[in-house]
Amino acid sequence: MERIYFQAGPTTLPKEVMIRAKSEWEDFQGTGLNIMEHSHRGETYENIHEQAKEKMRDLLNIPETHDVLFLQGGASLQFAMVPMNLIISGKTAKYVLTGSWSEKAFKEASKIGSSEAVISGKETKYRTLPKMNYESSDQDAYLHITSNNTIYGTQWPDLNEFSHPNLVADMSSDIMSKPFNVSKYALIYAGAQKNLGPAGVTAVIIRKDLLIENEDLPSILSYQVHAKNNSLYNTPPVYSIYLLNLVLQWIEEQGGVKEMQLRNEKKAQTIYHAIDNSGGFYNGYATPDSRSHMNVTFTLSDQELENQFIKEAEESSIFGLKGHRSVGGFRASIYNAVPQESCDRLAQFMQQFQEKYGN
Amino acid sequence: MERIYFQAGPTTLPKEVMIRAKSEWEDFQGTGLNIMEHSHRGETYENIHEQAKEKMRDLLNIPETHDVLFLQGGASLQFAMVPMNLIISGKTAKYVLTGSWSEKAFKEASKIGSSEAVISGKETKYRTLPKMNYESSDQDAYLHITSNNTIYGTQWPDLNEFSHPNLVADMSSDIMSKPFNVSKYALIYAGAQKNLGPAGVTAVIIRKDLLIENEDLPSILSYQVHAKNNSLYNTPPVYSIYLLNLVLQWIEEQGGVKEMQLRNEKKAQTIYHAIDNSGGFYNGYATPDSRSHMNVTFTLSDQELENQFIKEAEESSIFGLKGHRSVGGFRASIYNAVPQESCDRLAQFMQQFQEKYGN
Repeated sequence: MERIYFQAGPTTLPKEVMIRAKSEWEDFQGTGLNIMEHSHRGETYENIHEQAKEKMRDLLNIPETHDVLFLQGGASLQFAMVPMNLIISGKTAKYVLTGSWSEKAFKEASKIGSSEAVISGKETKYRTLPKMNYESSDQDAYLHITSNNTIYGTQWPDLNEFSHPNLVADMSSDIMSKPFNVSKYALIYAGAQKNLGPAGVTAVIIRKDLLIENEDLPSILSYQVHAKNNSLYNTPPVYSIYLLNLVLQWIEEQGGVKEMQLRNEKKAQTIYHAIDNSGGFYNGYATPDSRSHMNVTFTLSDQELENQFIKEAEESSIFGLKGHRSVGGFRASIYNAVPQESCDRLAQFMQQFQEKYGN
Repeated sequence: MERIYFQAGPTTLPKEVMIRAKSEWEDFQGTGLNIMEHSHRGETYENIHEQAKEKMRDLLNIPETHDVLFLQGGASLQFAMVPMNLIISGKTAKYVLTGSWSEKAFKEASKIGSSEAVISGKETKYRTLPKMNYESSDQDAYLHITSNNTIYGTQWPDLNEFSHPNLVADMSSDIMSKPFNVSKYALIYAGAQKNLGPAGVTAVIIRKDLLIENEDLPSILSYQVHAKNNSLYNTPPVYSIYLLNLVLQWIEEQGGVKEMQLRNEKKAQTIYHAIDNSGGFYNGYATPDSRSHMNVTFTLSDQELENQFIKEAEESSIFGLKGHRSVGGFRASIYNAVPQESCDRLAQFMQQFQEKYGN
């Protein structure tokens, strides 16, 4: 049986992308080289670079007010770059805590400048997204949210409902999974290794008025420096951007982010349905109003069956279901590249497992 | 005729590495996935990660006193991380200027803490390496050198001759090109895209006593955090490290860094010989005592022939020879993966070109 995977990331890439990349492996466009062997200052790579930028713009309908950057260092480097670039003297960065990643983002900001957590879902153990009742203040440098919480399996259902003059979002785990209004955001960042490509490249969408020269900031940590140099200030991760471009092309061919949204909703429903119809044999970790369409988290009523579940899943060629250690149980990550068939097979396995071990 | 390349970086990878990576493309070790689709927390990837570290250690004979890290962001991020981590209050970072990259490193350090350029080759337009007559002081945070200067084509002939309690080196463009005594260095960093692999991963070798916890430093910028987490603090650039591991394995199979040194010396001599025996038709940019075995820079006496040289080289399937705009002329970058045959073909072309256009 074909192996299927539900990893939290790095995760599987679309099969069509992997086939295309292999077909171009040793001779990219007649050059006799792989694209990763090309100079980042040459026309061959520059075309890829521009295409990737343009496809980001097209797919997310990014307005001219915003720039697109490709950086390195993952979301973790953005945890530092956002406050380094955006906390202006006298202003405070505000954070919404919805899980471990937003906690980390807040902790890093606190090292750099005045920062405050203004809303938190911690008291529900991050099972439920908190009420977004924050009123912006003139003293805010920005308001930071995490759009999807991979560990707890929660996700803001509507990315258009927040309002803040400088709204910043970590969208590492759900960018390109559904349409939203980019113009409501001052800055969006996303490590590629869930929905955009392989690990090693980070997309940043930034409103241009935030690109302010700051001679005190190390150049490599300045958004303005990267923007001025079209993300070629230093050698970019050529191959990761090449694959990101192929992934974006694949999304376009499939019907764009609207189609991704329909698929992701259906995929998620397939697994949540298996949980909700198990009569308590399986339990969702996140409360229903906060459920993620990217990471489905659940536990077994009988915790002693956990290892057996993982074992039998792997015997059925289903991999990557172990939950994060801070939550336990299971997590099925169903990013864009995971097909409906994988979710069907998982739901079927869950039912069979329940038939075998349930009362 | 087969195309040959002399790019400054990203550059060609060994053919054997590209063949191996292609053969493992869609099914790494029977998992049905490419290694880039594996979780960085899984055993499959962790084995690669450990192998790459061990091979770095073996090939460079890295002592137990030093740790090996794999980071992102290239040498440009190291320009900031080195001073952020190593400039201690009351101490000054000292820089040796031998070209544009060391100038950049110094400029970035100056933003972060007390920094001083103590030796410079600028008055020779970086054609000649300066005399290393610097006496270390108790006030020094470290002494920073650049081992090979890609733009000017100069290279310190002996990496063992420098002595400083905290010697730091940017070896981006010549690491693994020859043996040297790692224990003489406090910290070595190298962007991968010349001798180690594709762009997107940076190797850091750091003496363990420098791994000091600093709660004020953003975690992602702290060597201590990366070392404590075995370079898995955040998602590593999985595929770049996989390829780096294959490149290191290739170096090992070829006979190690000593063999690389012999090959690089011969390759460099082939081209320098063509320059020196041209009776002034070609002129080396670097003075002979400072010549690099990685980047051979030269000009034509008759500058008006420059475009013709590039044009006819490309007609002969020879690419990547254009010099950096700050020096002009030509640059043949002959990193580890460039074979002797490429250098022979270039030397032959240079001779033919001279026969055609020389007096």
